[in-house]
Amino acid sequence: MNQPVLGVDVGGTRAKFVVLDGEGQVIQTGEVASDPGSAARTLAAVAGALDPSLWPDREPDASSAAGLAGVGLACAGVVDPDRGWLGRSPNLPGWEDSDLFAAVGRVFGNVDRAVANDVNSALYGEARRGAGRGCRDLVMIALGTGVGGGVILNERLIIGAHCGAGEIGHMVLDPEGPVCTCGNPGCLESYAGSVGLLKAARKAARDGAAPGVRALAEEKGPDLTTRDLALLAEAGDQGAVALFAAAGQRLGQAVGNLVNILDPERVIIGGGVARAGDLILEPCRRTAKDIILAVEAKKTPIVPAELGTGAAALGAALLVASRENAP
Amino acid sequence: MNQPVLGVDVGGTRAKFVVLDGEGQVIQTGEVASDPGSAARTLAAVAGALDPSLWPDREPDASSAAGLAGVGLACAGVVDPDRGWLGRSPNLPGWEDSDLFAAVGRVFGNVDRAVANDVNSALYGEARRGAGRGCRDLVMIALGTGVGGGVILNERLIIGAHCGAGEIGHMVLDPEGPVCTCGNPGCLESYAGSVGLLKAARKAARDGAAPGVRALAEEKGPDLTTRDLALLAEAGDQGAVALFAAAGQRLGQAVGNLVNILDPERVIIGGGVARAGDLILEPCRRTAKDIILAVEAKKTPIVPAELGTGAAALGAALLVASRENAP
Repeated sequence: MNQPVLGVDVGGTRAKFVVLDGEGQVIQTGEVASDPGSAARTLAAVAGALDPSLWPDREPDASSAAGLAGVGLACAGVVDPDRGWLGRSPNLPGWEDSDLFAAVGRVFGNVDRAVANDVNSALYGEARRGAGRGCRDLVMIALGTGVGGGVILNERLIIGAHCGAGEIGHMVLDPEGPVCTCGNPGCLESYAGSVGLLKAARKAARDGAAPGVRALAEEKGPDLTTRDLALLAEAGDQGAVALFAAAGQRLGQAVGNLVNILDPERVIIGGGVARAGDLILEPCRRTAKDIILAVEAKKTPIVPAELGTGAAALGAALLVASRENAP
Repeated sequence: MNQPVLGVDVGGTRAKFVVLDGEGQVIQTGEVASDPGSAARTLAAVAGALDPSLWPDREPDASSAAGLAGVGLACAGVVDPDRGWLGRSPNLPGWEDSDLFAAVGRVFGNVDRAVANDVNSALYGEARRGAGRGCRDLVMIALGTGVGGGVILNERLIIGAHCGAGEIGHMVLDPEGPVCTCGNPGCLESYAGSVGLLKAARKAARDGAAPGVRALAEEKGPDLTTRDLALLAEAGDQGAVALFAAAGQRLGQAVGNLVNILDPERVIIGGGVARAGDLILEPCRRTAKDIILAVEAKKTPIVPAELGTGAAALGAALLVASRENAP
């Protein structure tokens, strides 16, 4: 099978894509504006951005769509990979309850298709090419605006009976904790997603416990980011360090619980908040080690993701390539 | 394959067993005293209790051991089903770090063998013959003295990279919660195992909040059981009802978290404390429904186990029978 495959990670504002050749090498990457109201327009924009002249062994005037063996899509939301269906999807309101296999077919013709939740795609990418290489059993937690998750066991993504698995961000860690966007108190997301972390930072600033954070919050106003906070912490501000430590301890509680339930070979932490690195990962590791019961499992590596923001597009391409190569 | 298989569930004081014929029908059940110091003596006692005269189509004087096609063992502790190895096992100190496949071979000769953690065995039994019939994806929580758990996904028991999966009882639900036997605060076990529930009952009695529980605790002294408390609650005592409701809410937090992570078809609640039935299951269901994120998954049935205390022996027999029938 020598034809290229395309992977697309569709966010609310941008669609990232990657093209792999028949040997799985990356031969093009790019991104276009996504249209949260229309899958067809977004996919047509991606098709328009494909440039087969960049692809080795490809005639410059070949139709890009005709040249593809398969297209994989990653979307936030509830995705049914068997039926190619997208259910609830807050970032893509115009795509909800739609047949993504059909949408791909209308733009790219009769190609192989795969769809997956974006965090599952990213996990699959990490499992094949990133921080999870060589592992059969993996858990991933993605610390973004919200907190997503994914599980691979016996080399297979766990989808769930209602395509609802992997909602690790909504593990309730303390029924008296801060209220999450989902309405429940004390979800992991309310501690370790960027919305929750920024809320905790503003509270610490108000309480007077963190003068450095307060000064930064006043300077940045509504533009304050977790990256700003991480830079402050890296510069030695103890109030900022404490914020990441608190988030990391809650992350460690979640990781410890997950290892007790599933005992994976490795736990991968990705997403923008994870760019704070050991500021959040070291407290996470300490707490998780305390909670993990099985002595051997206490050594389970808790590692940062390696593929960055391109993980989901790559994972989607690898998913469709693996399907294409299935017996 | 028409020869019978034997399943044995080895506890700290008793070993329960079941014999299935080649069609999977139960043809003998029984129990013997177990010797926590010696696997060989315990298995020899089981072999001595087998009575082939009870088995259909079996000659009365046939050697029972020679007549068996396979032997499955269920043990509490860390079990490696691939290597037939028992690691840490608090109930069976003399069996720790031992080769169970070899122990079975010494007593029963050259038969097929399977070993599994006791809760995993019970879950497998429930999956094949009990509350999980027809499901590919199941989670089980066993509320005993401690709290155990098991996970089946795609019809396979999840063992984990270090044979440490299924420690659902040590999911930390509140870092400020009561200290568990494992040393961590706020584990599910500290709320919903019988040790934790009895501790909560004695605290409620001391605090004066539950006069009925106090009277019962004074009457029963150290012999107080969760069954006593359940009878009191069934008789309408509000203090006792509140104890099961509190345990049920914590169980519901754990179940909600598990459904968010794995989205199984069904969650099975077993063990002695679960005999309190809806006293604990209804608060569990209400809390879990609030926590579960995916709308369809909110309907996930949370059901009592059906097979009672024989589940693990039956599961062990079915495990070895399924291995024997494997291609």
